[in-house]
Amino acid sequence: MSRTTTAGPQAAGSRTRLSPEQRREQLLDLGVRLLATRSLDELSIDLLAEEAGISRGLLYHYFGNKHAFHRAVVRRAADDLIAQTAPPVDGEPMERLLVSMTAYVDYVVANHEGYLSLVKAASGGNDALREIYEEARSSLNGRVFREDGGRGVIPDTPATRLVVRGWSAMVEELVLSWIEDDRGLAREQLIEVLASSLPAVVAVVPG
Amino acid sequence: MSRTTTAGPQAAGSRTRLSPEQRREQLLDLGVRLLATRSLDELSIDLLAEEAGISRGLLYHYFGNKHAFHRAVVRRAADDLIAQTAPPVDGEPMERLLVSMTAYVDYVVANHEGYLSLVKAASGGNDALREIYEEARSSLNGRVFREDGGRGVIPDTPATRLVVRGWSAMVEELVLSWIEDDRGLAREQLIEVLASSLPAVVAVVPG
Repeated sequence: MSRTTTAGPQAAGSRTRLSPEQRREQLLDLGVRLLATRSLDELSIDLLAEEAGISRGLLYHYFGNKHAFHRAVVRRAADDLIAQTAPPVDGEPMERLLVSMTAYVDYVVANHEGYLSLVKAASGGNDALREIYEEARSSLNGRVFREDGGRGVIPDTPATRLVVRGWSAMVEELVLSWIEDDRGLAREQLIEVLASSLPAVVAVVPG
Repeated sequence: MSRTTTAGPQAAGSRTRLSPEQRREQLLDLGVRLLATRSLDELSIDLLAEEAGISRGLLYHYFGNKHAFHRAVVRRAADDLIAQTAPPVDGEPMERLLVSMTAYVDYVVANHEGYLSLVKAASGGNDALREIYEEARSSLNGRVFREDGGRGVIPDTPATRLVVRGWSAMVEELVLSWIEDDRGLAREQLIEVLASSLPAVVAVVPG
């Protein structure tokens, strides 16, 4: 089943010679695609080797070991999530938040297995993955303030930072629970709830 | 260090003979007290044996093995949490919710280490502990509707059930983050945010 060549056609898609860095990036992309429908436990070096059509030895050369491979894939997946949920530059704050929430819901739906396993690994005490997860979450949460651009919808205070952190935990729980059972809530309605709940909870912060 | 008698004075506190059931309950109470300031990983049969002044063998007789012991302690801790956060029978819905949230915050502060380790174990894929955790959470969430008593503050629909689930994830995140760093928010202010955010997020549910 597995190939032992060092640059299989499935991975390269052409005979163009890639730099080691390009090849590593390509393998990470493949890892992220494989993770979408699998848990981290199911994402092995063997599977990647088979799908990429290259040797396990070469993958160990690129990634060191399974844990380092998982960290690299999760970091790439987190970068993808941050990029894909970037709100548009123009528009009213709520409209931009709606666009961002729409992209978030679609991302979690499309990458459900991998996302769920990352949340579990990060919550369950895998410190390396928790760090990547927390960084991504901080980046997404911080965007609420940066994107706000001083227009005053979300005042940037330590207390509102705390509440936004709570709101993002709610958003994650709502999307994951909704995927399990939508309770008759359409995708657009869910997205509306996610976006509207942000100013709603910020409004109850004292001061 | 450890005692090998079958009923040490530290555990019994008197010479009264206890039934096996009473003794098991007493040991569970001790386990819950020990868990308050420890993670589940740190709560061993050896530690309980030493603190209770009885043999490890007798503890294995009562609890079977470490995992069954952890399940029994966590179930007891969850029952305690549900009992301690019971809202008063009388009063306006928001007042009763405030009382309940106050008890919840105080419980998590007093049992921080054990609570955090339970959340981690439940999120991280320990299915037995996850089941107990989910049962307790369902019980706490369901109370929002039961306690409401048809007064219409929180309409009981599948969509509001979903949103209340998200709200309780936010509450847990807020309390655990607040314990780490209070961001200048006083305990009373935090409790006010927790309680006020419930009607705020329910209000954004369509229909």
